Amino acid sequence: MPSYQAPVQDVSFLLDDVFQIDRYDNLPGFSDATRDVREAILSEAAKFSEEVLQPLNLSGDQEGCTRHDDGRVTTPKGFKDAFKQLGEGGWLGLAAPSEFGGQDLPSTLARAVGEFMTSANMAFSMYHGLTQGAVAALLVHGSPEQQKTFVPKMLAGEWAGTMNLTEPHCGTDLGLLRTKAVKQADGSYKISGTKIFISGGEQDLTDNIIHLVIARIEGAPAGTKGISLFVVPKVLINADGSLGERNGVSCGSIEHKMGIHGNSTCVLNYDNATGWLVGEENKGLAAMFVMMNEARLGVGLQGLAVSEVAYQNAAAYARERLQGRALTGAKDKDKPADPIIVHPDIRRTLLTIRSFNEAARALALWASLKSDVAHRATDAKERQAADDALGLLTPVIKGVFTDTGFANAVAAQQVFGGHGYIVEHGMEQFVRDARIAMIYEGANGIQALDLVGRKLPKDGGRAVMAFFGEIAAFAKDNGGEEALKPFVTPLSNSLGHLQQATMWLMQNAMAKPDNAGAASTDYMHLFGLVALGYMWGLMAKAAADKVAAGDSSDYLKTKLVTGRFFMERVLPATATHLARIQAGADTVMELPAEAF
Amino acid sequence: MPSYQAPVQDVSFLLDDVFQIDRYDNLPGFSDATRDVREAILSEAAKFSEEVLQPLNLSGDQEGCTRHDDGRVTTPKGFKDAFKQLGEGGWLGLAAPSEFGGQDLPSTLARAVGEFMTSANMAFSMYHGLTQGAVAALLVHGSPEQQKTFVPKMLAGEWAGTMNLTEPHCGTDLGLLRTKAVKQADGSYKISGTKIFISGGEQDLTDNIIHLVIARIEGAPAGTKGISLFVVPKVLINADGSLGERNGVSCGSIEHKMGIHGNSTCVLNYDNATGWLVGEENKGLAAMFVMMNEARLGVGLQGLAVSEVAYQNAAAYARERLQGRALTGAKDKDKPADPIIVHPDIRRTLLTIRSFNEAARALALWASLKSDVAHRATDAKERQAADDALGLLTPVIKGVFTDTGFANAVAAQQVFGGHGYIVEHGMEQFVRDARIAMIYEGANGIQALDLVGRKLPKDGGRAVMAFFGEIAAFAKDNGGEEALKPFVTPLSNSLGHLQQATMWLMQNAMAKPDNAGAASTDYMHLFGLVALGYMWGLMAKAAADKVAAGDSSDYLKTKLVTGRFFMERVLPATATHLARIQAGADTVMELPAEAF
Repeated sequence: MPSYQAPVQDVSFLLDDVFQIDRYDNLPGFSDATRDVREAILSEAAKFSEEVLQPLNLSGDQEGCTRHDDGRVTTPKGFKDAFKQLGEGGWLGLAAPSEFGGQDLPSTLARAVGEFMTSANMAFSMYHGLTQGAVAALLVHGSPEQQKTFVPKMLAGEWAGTMNLTEPHCGTDLGLLRTKAVKQADGSYKISGTKIFISGGEQDLTDNIIHLVIARIEGAPAGTKGISLFVVPKVLINADGSLGERNGVSCGSIEHKMGIHGNSTCVLNYDNATGWLVGEENKGLAAMFVMMNEARLGVGLQGLAVSEVAYQNAAAYARERLQGRALTGAKDKDKPADPIIVHPDIRRTLLTIRSFNEAARALALWASLKSDVAHRATDAKERQAADDALGLLTPVIKGVFTDTGFANAVAAQQVFGGHGYIVEHGMEQFVRDARIAMIYEGANGIQALDLVGRKLPKDGGRAVMAFFGEIAAFAKDNGGEEALKPFVTPLSNSLGHLQQATMWLMQNAMAKPDNAGAASTDYMHLFGLVALGYMWGLMAKAAADKVAAGDSSDYLKTKLVTGRFFMERVLPATATHLARIQAGADTVMELPAEAF
Repeated sequence: MPSYQAPVQDVSFLLDDVFQIDRYDNLPGFSDATRDVREAILSEAAKFSEEVLQPLNLSGDQEGCTRHDDGRVTTPKGFKDAFKQLGEGGWLGLAAPSEFGGQDLPSTLARAVGEFMTSANMAFSMYHGLTQGAVAALLVHGSPEQQKTFVPKMLAGEWAGTMNLTEPHCGTDLGLLRTKAVKQADGSYKISGTKIFISGGEQDLTDNIIHLVIARIEGAPAGTKGISLFVVPKVLINADGSLGERNGVSCGSIEHKMGIHGNSTCVLNYDNATGWLVGEENKGLAAMFVMMNEARLGVGLQGLAVSEVAYQNAAAYARERLQGRALTGAKDKDKPADPIIVHPDIRRTLLTIRSFNEAARALALWASLKSDVAHRATDAKERQAADDALGLLTPVIKGVFTDTGFANAVAAQQVFGGHGYIVEHGMEQFVRDARIAMIYEGANGIQALDLVGRKLPKDGGRAVMAFFGEIAAFAKDNGGEEALKPFVTPLSNSLGHLQQATMWLMQNAMAKPDNAGAASTDYMHLFGLVALGYMWGLMAKAAADKVAAGDSSDYLKTKLVTGRFFMERVLPATATHLARIQAGADTVMELPAEAF
């Protein structure tokens, strides 16, 4: 049975020392999140994740979800009670407005809590993750009445939320969607069509499910310009707020899939279901993007979260499993063999995972701080700069964290040898669960294209220039310090690769867009490595400062060694990504389709 | 439902044009394998793989194996009949000696056939793959009587074979094994102990199962020097060759595992089972290594085989799935969207997989030719050189083919978007199946250590120097030819990286073995990339020669473009591997075990 311990100390180091979150006291909600409050919340979240959610992870995978003949779906044993505890504990509304029952705390703190819960049980956490995404969309685009009707119940965990985009013939290309909405005399709409891959589309956790659905209003323009967003509750709500009749939406089947078995992935049939427009007619895609951007950060976090729990179990196994002897001679002669952690290749594997996890955690919180600033700062310029950074990094976090998180889950499984392939150890579940994060909320190829095709050129490259400038300034300010040279020198080198790649794209992709497409995935990973390297720079500086001030804790020593490993062993891949980008699209595009 | 078409033309190009197998006519068995014979065998194998084995792959995964209360194990529907056809078709003895019912053909041909069958159904192919491994061990180390008793029935597919090494506390480190053998008055042994992870350990395909088991004879030395190999039939054999009493070996349970569900992975309990020594007392590990080296090449081939079938299905999907428009403007305006193969990132993904597959196929056949020469040539020096090359490349083929084959299965699954995560499309099965190949027959970390720690320094580096010399000579002979420059220049560059890495190991790993351990996985992949690049050099030369001679087939054009993609986009990773190797072991080894 796998185990999990939430990295509370690491989050505190990031919030307290690296990002010095107390500097943001002027933002609404931040002054309430004092160090004591933060630590209390993190330790409660850790407890809930470790003791309630994690024990349901393996059993939830093995039992899976069941659809009954009447269309009801049963989630695994224990999920319903855990969801109840989640709602009652106030976890869903941590960063939500207090007028709807939330706690107004920084979303940065909620993000850290989200990592813990996802590490403990990814399939479970999707139920509330999507609920939070739906809340976010309603808070931005919903009418005051819609907000009042739905949000408090959703934040209390009494009702859940879903996101309905995909149809059988239409995933990435939403312009192809066929689900229809017909306006009724009372202002509502009748929605008909089939949606697939709807996570939590039907379940037995909550009394109601609030579906956010994109559909095409009769007579709307073709393509993405004719898409509107609707809120469609599973059970209609009476004027007094009580639950009324069942709406015309039902679960036709649930998918048999590779992983996340604890989460029901549904085909939802809409048959003249009653829905209400969210936001404006034909502006549904923009409204859905609020939810999608939120969800993309959440999915990126899934990559980190699974990587973290996989690491912890692999490290524990490596310390315990006796097999073979150290290359330099037996370390523990009294035992029949040494623990496999004596082997450099095992350590290389573990440090590869860990040095990603710690930097990714930093980058996730860095991005969440940008989100808080973008939403809460009073200064428009400050909000703009934060929003630029968040928009730029969102596809990077989604794509790089999930690709790397999956690779790390595979690497952690490898530490277990044959035992890693066996269900009961739980390592293979991490791999199967982590796999979906590379696909949903926009497959990673789409993230790469979003980065290269939209985020880079946006506003004349304002966001990317600011980001490069921030890293260059950090390197300039700290390059002279001896303790930081092992960080700053490789970071500057890799930033150079990223700048060369960016320049190459500017010179070669305007006239020939295929050069951007052929470069996109390598560019995204090159970008991600530099961003993670920058986080290591920031963490090393904070750690070195504390060491210089007399802190001699093992935590800081380990932090600095882990960071050096990243700079020596992981970051050098930027050179290969640059070479691939500069190879251009000619060979990639040369063959006719039928040659493949 | 996934589909599969065996790459017969590609194998023929390799055998006929690249390796010019007719040059080996002087080797026993080769002159019988004329071009006509080869093509007949390959096309029959293709038919059997496509029509009999492939249709059982998805259903076999879903049904899995069942252990009954009495210890019997049932394999999935259709497997038994297919195994019967396999035996009757003579497929098991293709390259085996005719005195035991084999056909004496080159093992190179059997290897090509093995790829087809594994692509079609990996879980199924393990039953006969391990049987062939057991035959190989018996042919080298078994007594004439053992050979006569077991081999003909095994080649006929009437009996199967297995390989029993692992115990619960002992996988890589076989010196820890506890299974005991007690010598009896009649020269036989009583074997007692528990073996785990035994593929095909119990099944309903054959009347008997011939287990090859390592155990420790009472009073034998501790560690690997006290290991002996035994043959232990599931059912004892009467003097007249008929089946007698059931032996004391039984299946205690079967594992629930990530993939290869169609293959039964058994816990085997030996309880005073009767066995006979194979080879000499306490020399069991050497005997088992005959089987293991054979099996390692077979497992390497699994990486390629799954990568190939995953590629084919991803390419077909990419040609058919309509979604979005080409970056350069709509390609097919009459349709609602373009097929996704118009996108550079999809092509990049497909070409990454394909350019590996074709080079890996070449390298597998190149190594099999070395094996044939090593076993069949009359000239001792020629045999030695071939054996050197085979030994050197075996860990590379096992480690690199399975790591890359898995990564490719994941990449192919990604082309399907959300549909790739759903069981019915079969792509997620390829990922789950491919995963085990990185683990069994020596986890890939062990392969890397075998390469760096044993194969490199062996005989003063004779094998590696010969291999580098061969590539350098190729580059020298062909570097002047314009058509080959896109191949020779990057190959020489990457060979330079490999030589620098090798030099670095010579200078740094003798005094400090951890430098070898910390470098091993990167070195193995660097080595693999150069070996695959060399194969592209050979293939490009053969293709360019045919083009120059007037062949204008699409096959050759595609081959040359695919090769250029490899040189431009895949091979450059050698630089990063070199940088990682040269980073050394200091940071990797710096932390105490408890810091992980």
